[in-house]
Amino acid sequence: MDNSRKITLSESEIPTHWYNIVHDMPNKPLPPLNPGTGEPIGPEALMPLFPMELIKQEVSQEKYIEIPDQVRDVYSMWRPTPMFRARNLEKMLDTPAKIYYKFEGVSPSGSHKPNTAVPQAYYNAQEGVKRITTETGAGQWGSALSFACQMFGIECDVHMVRISFDQKPYRKMMMQTWGANVYPSPSERTEAGRQVLAKDPDTPGSLGIAISEAVEGAAMSETTKYSLGSVLNHVLMHQTVIGLESIKQLEKAGADLPDYVFAPFGGGSNFAGISFPFVHLNLTEGKNIQCIASEPTSAPKLTRGVFRYDFGDTVGMTPLIPMYTLGHDFVPAKIHAGGLRYHGAGAIVSQLLADGLIGAEAIDQIESFEAGVMFARAEGIVPAPEANHAIASVIRAANAAKEAGESKTILFNMCGHGNFDMLAYQDYFAGNLEKHEMTQEEVDAAVAKIESPTIDSVKEMLANMG
Amino acid sequence: MDNSRKITLSESEIPTHWYNIVHDMPNKPLPPLNPGTGEPIGPEALMPLFPMELIKQEVSQEKYIEIPDQVRDVYSMWRPTPMFRARNLEKMLDTPAKIYYKFEGVSPSGSHKPNTAVPQAYYNAQEGVKRITTETGAGQWGSALSFACQMFGIECDVHMVRISFDQKPYRKMMMQTWGANVYPSPSERTEAGRQVLAKDPDTPGSLGIAISEAVEGAAMSETTKYSLGSVLNHVLMHQTVIGLESIKQLEKAGADLPDYVFAPFGGGSNFAGISFPFVHLNLTEGKNIQCIASEPTSAPKLTRGVFRYDFGDTVGMTPLIPMYTLGHDFVPAKIHAGGLRYHGAGAIVSQLLADGLIGAEAIDQIESFEAGVMFARAEGIVPAPEANHAIASVIRAANAAKEAGESKTILFNMCGHGNFDMLAYQDYFAGNLEKHEMTQEEVDAAVAKIESPTIDSVKEMLANMG
Repeated sequence: MDNSRKITLSESEIPTHWYNIVHDMPNKPLPPLNPGTGEPIGPEALMPLFPMELIKQEVSQEKYIEIPDQVRDVYSMWRPTPMFRARNLEKMLDTPAKIYYKFEGVSPSGSHKPNTAVPQAYYNAQEGVKRITTETGAGQWGSALSFACQMFGIECDVHMVRISFDQKPYRKMMMQTWGANVYPSPSERTEAGRQVLAKDPDTPGSLGIAISEAVEGAAMSETTKYSLGSVLNHVLMHQTVIGLESIKQLEKAGADLPDYVFAPFGGGSNFAGISFPFVHLNLTEGKNIQCIASEPTSAPKLTRGVFRYDFGDTVGMTPLIPMYTLGHDFVPAKIHAGGLRYHGAGAIVSQLLADGLIGAEAIDQIESFEAGVMFARAEGIVPAPEANHAIASVIRAANAAKEAGESKTILFNMCGHGNFDMLAYQDYFAGNLEKHEMTQEEVDAAVAKIESPTIDSVKEMLANMG
Repeated sequence: MDNSRKITLSESEIPTHWYNIVHDMPNKPLPPLNPGTGEPIGPEALMPLFPMELIKQEVSQEKYIEIPDQVRDVYSMWRPTPMFRARNLEKMLDTPAKIYYKFEGVSPSGSHKPNTAVPQAYYNAQEGVKRITTETGAGQWGSALSFACQMFGIECDVHMVRISFDQKPYRKMMMQTWGANVYPSPSERTEAGRQVLAKDPDTPGSLGIAISEAVEGAAMSETTKYSLGSVLNHVLMHQTVIGLESIKQLEKAGADLPDYVFAPFGGGSNFAGISFPFVHLNLTEGKNIQCIASEPTSAPKLTRGVFRYDFGDTVGMTPLIPMYTLGHDFVPAKIHAGGLRYHGAGAIVSQLLADGLIGAEAIDQIESFEAGVMFARAEGIVPAPEANHAIASVIRAANAAKEAGESKTILFNMCGHGNFDMLAYQDYFAGNLEKHEMTQEEVDAAVAKIESPTIDSVKEMLANMG
């Protein structure tokens, strides 16, 4: 048993392969559907948007996919990330539980997002793409992609929701420092943007509009593609470097396998990144590691949403995806954890949840910040508001272990630092935060609006298609 | 030769002792003087402000001072810090030079400052102190001390210059997250503050006023002390963990000892931290490592100031200290590298410079940001504006090596990240930065105002005193 706080790995221990959980899933995720015809769409439908290699990964059932050397080389700028034993937090909680966290905040942009931004930029560069477009809300994803594009000499156009562009200039500046072009969305650059501005010149914008602009921007030229930071299968797979390193680190520390693995849940890549390699141990080695997604009570798609087909975006431009959802036009409360406000969950995570292979719990905003402040005072690092949800789950589990007098091993994904989120802490200390727990009536009303096919009806159609 | 980007050490390799360069200095620093009597002051004069152990360290000539286990334990939350080989920057510069940087931005508050904040809080706690007061400008030092006080259960009162308190809320929030009490300065809490406010209720404040308030706050109670983040001997010594780790890391990487060691220069602790262990090798092993301080052209005390006695603070409350100075009431241009705007240099660094044992060069603000943006695009990390000065020096040296066709080894202190300084980058990209190079007339006018004793007159007095 190593008594260090930090469990580190050498660069030679950066994983050589990503883990593709689809290979081991007892029920594979159902296919995306063409919203027009209601029929499954093939990978060719994605070709205008993504490079071939990423499309292949999106539909791959290979268990492991090799990480290119050039990607591992850029990963080595911050990976392997450290794992910490949270000794101070354990002491503060007076718990018999052993708490470990994997700290992804050491990346250049301060979160786990570059784990997928870097390979996405790499494959695009390999296939001759000169420019990548994307959307961003507060800027977490946009900054990761800006950094990644800079590493491979690709132009990066980020459509940033106008209200964030105006109110949160720090991330915008970071993107520009890495050479990206950042446009407030809606903009005059796209037809979608011009239409919105014609109707409402003072609109604050939305992620839905920003997606439309980014997709339209990608269609403008053959050497321009589009990039997404969560939800999709290949994105989740790229993030598995987190969990793969974690397993090595727990081993190196002489620690038990965790009883619980927690991660914040937005679209799924944060959670998938740390948990899938542990779900793998459950599926293939009969382990019983509880992998639990921490979502906000204001956007509780996993704990209170329905599992059916829905659009990935607000305006309904994407294929229909099998997901736990609150409805694609669901507008969650404006919590500070912007990355967790997404209406649905990626197809893989949704199937795993439906099959009882992962769990979920909902945390309200105030409990999340109470947890985050406790963590900062114990462990020093001020967490991102998204991370605070997982920390709240950890504290619940550590307190339960204390009450039961059981020693448990807990691991969580400390997905990013809160340096750009200090105004959220200000609101917390000023007593300006609301819990934002949805009422049953609100949940019912949201899901009642979903009109797209049910899972059962699609299964039946697929069975009939043979 | 290790081909990793990062050279890491295990927690057991955190230094066990700080290095006290006074032991090896051919000419010891001259004593501080009582400004009233003009006579040397003894350590007892510091007792109202500092705990005994820090006063002992301030005047110690022991070569090594042991780092307490509890301090090393807190250090282990982020130390040893990684050293990076800046391969991407080398490539971008097309230089034969090998460039290494020690990255102190991984600390909880994002800079090297906790290296001294932690032992200062520890020794205060050991001696029964319940509250520490300090001043801060933009908040770099205040946040380091807030974190450190939280670790040892001490209250922390930070007097933050009002204009920063109002305009830079992020660092203030960070301090409050760690449990500190942050007051805009001037405040109604102190006599000094009330006097200033009575005359000018809308004053933006200044570091000089904030120091007065913090010192007054410390005098209010026997269990309250004061803390300073640079300049003093013990503060510089605490920072030597940076250079001590660096030597081990270069060895581990199979690298040569550096030809050049660069660091930003404000009051001296940043520069001392990385360079003193290398100056030690020059003094005791006949090495020839050039240790060069990078100061701003807007506050060029080392390259254009005079070496004589001066006050440590603006208003003239401290003892007189032998320093390279531009005059204690010198008001530098408002460059973004707030940490480098200090008028003088600590006594040890000043003596070393007078003896030709270290060097200095001045960098203008625009060159510093050009260097910082290049670094961010090469190495990913967005640097603090202070760090950009050292990076500019590194780029000069790497370009010189290229021109001369010589392979040189360069090390610099990448003292902190720029996450809280993005508005400075915004100004740079918008073309709103000025060079701020002092004219000879301005330098002459500044130093002509210094009235305190010359070094020679004090040496003569000391000789007469026997």
